Amino acid sequence: MSYFVENVRRRAQTAASEPRVLERLRAIVGAEHVLVDAEKVEPYAQDAVKEKFPPEAVLLPRTAEEIAAILRLANEERFPVTARGGGVGYTGGAVPVEGGVVIGTDRMNAIKEISPDDLYVVSEPGVTTYELHRAVEAHKLFYPPDPASYKESYIGGNIAENAGGMRSAKYGVTKHYVLGLEVVTPTGEIIRTGGKTSKNVVGFDLTGLMCGSEGMLGIITEATLRLVPLPEATETVRALFHSMKEACACVARFSRARVTPVAIEVLDKNSIKAVESEFAFGLPEEAEALLLVSVDGALEEVVRAANAVEEILLEGGGFSVLRAATREDEDRLWDVRRALSPSMKKYGTLKLNEDVVVPRSRVPELVEQVEEIGRRHRTFVANFGHAGDGNIHVNFMCDREDPESIARARLAVRDTFRVAVELGGTISGEHGIGYVKAPYLDMALDASTIDAMMRIKRALDPNGILNPGKMFV
Amino acid sequence: MSYFVENVRRRAQTAASEPRVLERLRAIVGAEHVLVDAEKVEPYAQDAVKEKFPPEAVLLPRTAEEIAAILRLANEERFPVTARGGGVGYTGGAVPVEGGVVIGTDRMNAIKEISPDDLYVVSEPGVTTYELHRAVEAHKLFYPPDPASYKESYIGGNIAENAGGMRSAKYGVTKHYVLGLEVVTPTGEIIRTGGKTSKNVVGFDLTGLMCGSEGMLGIITEATLRLVPLPEATETVRALFHSMKEACACVARFSRARVTPVAIEVLDKNSIKAVESEFAFGLPEEAEALLLVSVDGALEEVVRAANAVEEILLEGGGFSVLRAATREDEDRLWDVRRALSPSMKKYGTLKLNEDVVVPRSRVPELVEQVEEIGRRHRTFVANFGHAGDGNIHVNFMCDREDPESIARARLAVRDTFRVAVELGGTISGEHGIGYVKAPYLDMALDASTIDAMMRIKRALDPNGILNPGKMFV
Repeated sequence: MSYFVENVRRRAQTAASEPRVLERLRAIVGAEHVLVDAEKVEPYAQDAVKEKFPPEAVLLPRTAEEIAAILRLANEERFPVTARGGGVGYTGGAVPVEGGVVIGTDRMNAIKEISPDDLYVVSEPGVTTYELHRAVEAHKLFYPPDPASYKESYIGGNIAENAGGMRSAKYGVTKHYVLGLEVVTPTGEIIRTGGKTSKNVVGFDLTGLMCGSEGMLGIITEATLRLVPLPEATETVRALFHSMKEACACVARFSRARVTPVAIEVLDKNSIKAVESEFAFGLPEEAEALLLVSVDGALEEVVRAANAVEEILLEGGGFSVLRAATREDEDRLWDVRRALSPSMKKYGTLKLNEDVVVPRSRVPELVEQVEEIGRRHRTFVANFGHAGDGNIHVNFMCDREDPESIARARLAVRDTFRVAVELGGTISGEHGIGYVKAPYLDMALDASTIDAMMRIKRALDPNGILNPGKMFV
Repeated sequence: MSYFVENVRRRAQTAASEPRVLERLRAIVGAEHVLVDAEKVEPYAQDAVKEKFPPEAVLLPRTAEEIAAILRLANEERFPVTARGGGVGYTGGAVPVEGGVVIGTDRMNAIKEISPDDLYVVSEPGVTTYELHRAVEAHKLFYPPDPASYKESYIGGNIAENAGGMRSAKYGVTKHYVLGLEVVTPTGEIIRTGGKTSKNVVGFDLTGLMCGSEGMLGIITEATLRLVPLPEATETVRALFHSMKEACACVARFSRARVTPVAIEVLDKNSIKAVESEFAFGLPEEAEALLLVSVDGALEEVVRAANAVEEILLEGGGFSVLRAATREDEDRLWDVRRALSPSMKKYGTLKLNEDVVVPRSRVPELVEQVEEIGRRHRTFVANFGHAGDGNIHVNFMCDREDPESIARARLAVRDTFRVAVELGGTISGEHGIGYVKAPYLDMALDASTIDAMMRIKRALDPNGILNPGKMFV
């Protein structure tokens, strides 16, 4: 699969385009929920990678039974089926690279139950992460996973990709909150995995297997998610540093002081320069790193934790330390982080946004080596991300119209993956593999591990119907 | 598979008993690490279920490579292989019900690395949970999972069974702490799943799949486990109640007060009577339920949380409230919980210890119905367990020498499973399925879900070598 070689692919032709198949699909989901016109299917052709692969048809079912019927037909007629949530992924997981139909879960958007007593929510897959946050917060409950795209991403996609986010330093990732699932298997069976309790050891953990399976092992039609009580208060502390090493050294000190921040975000010097030149936050020239640290909990705890954080940042060489305890003031500190994406645009029209992860103490080495890689391949690179869990977003900027700049950036990406693996990490912390990282899978996993994964894929999807062209190439 | 019909099974005869196979096994692990004498293999014939299935040989390898060689030979010669950790499970997961060889992981007992900066430990499978706790606590780190058998259970077995424990109300279960694994597959390949970081979305989550796979999908040869900072302090509050309903109603109130106790343990009236008549703790006749609630965290937090807990217990109808903040005083309160198992003995020589789980608000209904089931089948039953996560240990007592009492207790078990499922729960919270609960699997899972599990089993273990006779019957 080539990457950004052409912006719009030719629309594939499979059995899904045949009138008699379309007729049967219309009978399953209703004619008004089958889109085939080029302009109607176009919004379903791409994700955040912005490479278009138009589907032959888009189906908008309402129930698991309809999805099961679609998959049974797909196995009979042999056409690809790709499930799609919010369509904001970074590795093409929701994109029909081999054509066939896209199943949009947009109409499956009900929150079915919220249980404050038993701390769970039952949701359909088409609910946005943001809506889910709002709905449970109304009951003073908290669903911690918060991928950056939470306003648009769907819960179904979050689970299929095992989405991460800022709060994972304390709260973990999506899979830590999935108690149970209803899933349609690639052959069109409806299965129920897990349940409503956090303890459940009945049979193999298919819930765990489905989390992060990138829509290749099943289509999630309902999820029961674990909730925790909504923390009473939060505080955020910001500090600048003269080196990345100093900044990252604070992370282990928090743990030693038994403080577990919700989020520890780091920006390297290129990130700081980019936001400063675009938005003039007043960040000084000599800042080589910036840390944003948030703590949450009961009011008294938060004050105590923020005091400890502030002290550690100052002792660790932090300067221009700011602290915010109200939502508005915290938002102002976080504006720097939010300004990153728009600030990058002037360095290139195409951003290769990778999300490598290393044991968190290795982040300074990673960033140092990535800077060297950027110089070697003459590509602007900015690093920022989740210092608390070692998940760093490495952003190589290039020019969408200049294939040679893209080729250089792709070499830089490959070198970055190699470094991440060498430092004891891996090639994706939260974006997944999809088709974008598929060529690099064997840098992170050995052949026998990949073989075990492929055996599972073939066992559940013998005809290769669900989301072909992803992960394994 | 019948249950307790005979106490010692005839030793099975497979290819593993043939001299030429034993010769090759000796060449793989060294002659001194192959046990075949009846009295030497006997300790490996049973787990906590106490039904003996003597293996044809016990192998004590030192490395993953040796285990891989054993499995390749097993596939060539077609004999069963069952992995064994501490051998203290409650569902026969480590017991070779179809004969063949047992692989004891006793010699694979090194803790390879503890990283205070990156919050992980790398351990071989034969380390006891207790040793692991001690080793990481020396670095002021904490590995929360604490199955009741933690002094004898091995980490490898904990992962294979996805062990629970008391602290799961706050900290979750074993699978929430497994970052990466080295596993030998049933066909003798060595694979590496996950890694050292809590974010990792490279390929399917085989780490998640292996947790709780009951030794049927692979043999764990190394584990990287996530750690958290060791909490500074703990406190425990105990209260008695006039009804189970009152006691359990406190659980949701803790959440509403944003307090998340580490452990919330409950004892029903039969449990209280049993420990009282055996050990005379001074628990009054009118006590129908007992709650033990522990909180942990920074010193100030713990005091605040324990205050809130005490207040909620009192407001919720609790009486004889006791509170302990030192290790010795806490231990004294927990003695009641520890006294349960020995206290049960006078009600029968055989205990059917089931571990159903329901959404925690349904615990009072569960206990009420289980009492009715006990009456119906004329079997003494005591209920206790983890009220914080709805995982209740239902103990039916019968007489090992009286088949009719066992038959009645087994009917009671079946009825209990039915009730747990009806209440939105399932048939095992932390013990697993093994061979003991295999006949009941279809009460909890529908046929299509079981079929998906069996497909995965066949894909990874086409010859059915690893731990046959478990889970699916």
